[in-house]
Amino acid sequence: MTFNDLIDRRGTNSSKWDKLEKLYGLSPDDGLAMWTADSDYSTAPCVIDAVRNAADHGVFGYSWMHPDYLNSIQWWMKNRHGWEIDSDWILTSQGLGNAIALCLDVWTSPGDGVVIFTPVYHEFAHKVKKSGRRVVECPLMRDGDGYGLDLEDAQSRLDGTEKMLLWCSPQNPSGRVWTPEELRAVAAFAERNDLILVSDEIHHDLVYPGTTFVPMDVAAPDARPWTVTLTAASKTFNIAGQRTGNMIIPDPDLRAAMRRRIQTLDYDPSALGVAMITAAYSTEGAAWVDEQIAHLDSNRKIFDAAIAEIPGLWSMPLQATYLAWIDFSGTGMDHAEFTRRLREDAKIATSPGPGFGAGGETFERFNLATQRGRVEEASKRLKHAFSDLQ
Amino acid sequence: MTFNDLIDRRGTNSSKWDKLEKLYGLSPDDGLAMWTADSDYSTAPCVIDAVRNAADHGVFGYSWMHPDYLNSIQWWMKNRHGWEIDSDWILTSQGLGNAIALCLDVWTSPGDGVVIFTPVYHEFAHKVKKSGRRVVECPLMRDGDGYGLDLEDAQSRLDGTEKMLLWCSPQNPSGRVWTPEELRAVAAFAERNDLILVSDEIHHDLVYPGTTFVPMDVAAPDARPWTVTLTAASKTFNIAGQRTGNMIIPDPDLRAAMRRRIQTLDYDPSALGVAMITAAYSTEGAAWVDEQIAHLDSNRKIFDAAIAEIPGLWSMPLQATYLAWIDFSGTGMDHAEFTRRLREDAKIATSPGPGFGAGGETFERFNLATQRGRVEEASKRLKHAFSDLQ
Repeated sequence: MTFNDLIDRRGTNSSKWDKLEKLYGLSPDDGLAMWTADSDYSTAPCVIDAVRNAADHGVFGYSWMHPDYLNSIQWWMKNRHGWEIDSDWILTSQGLGNAIALCLDVWTSPGDGVVIFTPVYHEFAHKVKKSGRRVVECPLMRDGDGYGLDLEDAQSRLDGTEKMLLWCSPQNPSGRVWTPEELRAVAAFAERNDLILVSDEIHHDLVYPGTTFVPMDVAAPDARPWTVTLTAASKTFNIAGQRTGNMIIPDPDLRAAMRRRIQTLDYDPSALGVAMITAAYSTEGAAWVDEQIAHLDSNRKIFDAAIAEIPGLWSMPLQATYLAWIDFSGTGMDHAEFTRRLREDAKIATSPGPGFGAGGETFERFNLATQRGRVEEASKRLKHAFSDLQ
Repeated sequence: MTFNDLIDRRGTNSSKWDKLEKLYGLSPDDGLAMWTADSDYSTAPCVIDAVRNAADHGVFGYSWMHPDYLNSIQWWMKNRHGWEIDSDWILTSQGLGNAIALCLDVWTSPGDGVVIFTPVYHEFAHKVKKSGRRVVECPLMRDGDGYGLDLEDAQSRLDGTEKMLLWCSPQNPSGRVWTPEELRAVAAFAERNDLILVSDEIHHDLVYPGTTFVPMDVAAPDARPWTVTLTAASKTFNIAGQRTGNMIIPDPDLRAAMRRRIQTLDYDPSALGVAMITAAYSTEGAAWVDEQIAHLDSNRKIFDAAIAEIPGLWSMPLQATYLAWIDFSGTGMDHAEFTRRLREDAKIATSPGPGFGAGGETFERFNLATQRGRVEEASKRLKHAFSDLQ
């Protein structure tokens, strides 16, 4: 399979495709699903082989986080991110949504404030609210072609009851890769305000040429006593359905608290999740990711070129992630009108910008992790849906 | 594959086999792993096909508990257990260990008493203690060839601070299948003492000819306002490594409380877990389970015949489960001596009886879900290890 071979995900228990009709009113026959952050192409051959091998063995009994699994994660962080970790630091969650929820559960109490910099991954605010904590929204500032930090403004929004900062790096939905200086400033901001810093780095592998991603722990190793890093192979290898993610916690006290919670709840990664990740984090997996990045780089160029041809639409330049962040403010249309055109005219399901918090009101997020043909089709439909502006 | 084809599980990330050396000091070359409750044979062909189909599709993105999955569970309960459930009643956990932990988390608080009838599945007491709750141990009474309930004795052990009853049906480790009358008495005991009744029915499918298993909810439907039933395909189909189990909760208030907790923690079953269970709970799956029961029935007869030939050893007659519960009290040996013979002479890893609580001191649990050859080998080694008694 190549990244461009069409795969029909309809009827495969895919949330992204099989909920298109129910959630967006779009027919699966001609709707384009560009919302949920997973990919429409198959995973790396080495990962598929791991699943085939498990099927050939046929026994799916109890397993555990064996050393090969932990070593593969350690190897990946060192080889792909220049990040030296101990395998002891790794705790496994049921995906990173669950990891965020567990962090809230362990280190905050109902009513506590949790700081987020918006617009940001919509699940941050959902999880904070769901757990009875309080969202403290600090808007990112527009900085040239992307977002920047205004930590003075953020400081003015805190009242001392905050306990945690949920941080997204690379940033979803903007695709921003933070500099080491920015990461250190965020770590210091967390220290100053006595916040546990949860750095969600799930998109860390999908970074475009010309930009270097730096893990929080590499930029700010002094912040270990208050920092937890979340990573997963789920975006990188399109295995989110396997619900397996990692919390990398160098600090022994933080780690002990989370380990106690996980053991009390009796979590353990699934045998297939462990097998798939062990296979993914390998030289074969790394070569496949490099090919994927080239494919995504080509997709974003095609899509950005189309957006640039539509007056009033603007695509924030991506440094990472396969999530295009498109601003419709130049159209002068209100949210209802431009999303009506997206759904009814272009028949495209996107993630609504307002869900990402303050600053997202005029945006929609488009998932480009699909076949080139689908990106071209989306481009054509968008031009058509907004043809009156051209 | 048949149930008797030898499968080498060493080096396959099997807890049962790959931890034999570390936990029991037994070489994987000649040690026999008869502890962890999973099976040494492969799962049903329909389940393996589901895994192969997933590998062929190659896309492992986000999924959900789709109607086919829920309908298959509903179908299984009705067809195999005469139990009519609504698909709405089904909540999915990360295996039943996690389900028990979640029940403790939702319906009890630190310091609360949790009632268990011992000897019983060792994880009941572990999970109660781990979560800072208090174990209230009520011994089962010896009743003919098995265990019975002494609810008067149990009542005398309660002091009114108990909040939950963890109930095991069919009973692990004794293989006892409770009668509808006993189940109703337990439900009434829970009501009288204002206990949430958690009925762990994970072994419900593996019942031997001549005995009928009745779900708690069928025997005592009036108990719904205080009852939660746990079921899973994990023992039945040997897919425990996939970490997927179900909580079936007819009462809307209890269900809402658990659903809220699961959603706050952001649990969702894995796509492969859902696919495997959907495939398992089918007519093909049912036919395979019938064959498995015949295989296990033959294994237990071989094993019991061997035990009967060793003076001082006694096997409690199984009505269900593949877990033989062997009493060594007739040998006059202390626990250290008969387990020394098991480990050093017979080189068999079993689950130590004392771990199951009061009443388990002179027992060991042997897992018979393996190839007939291994059961015969275990029988031979036991006869040899205790040959001085013969």
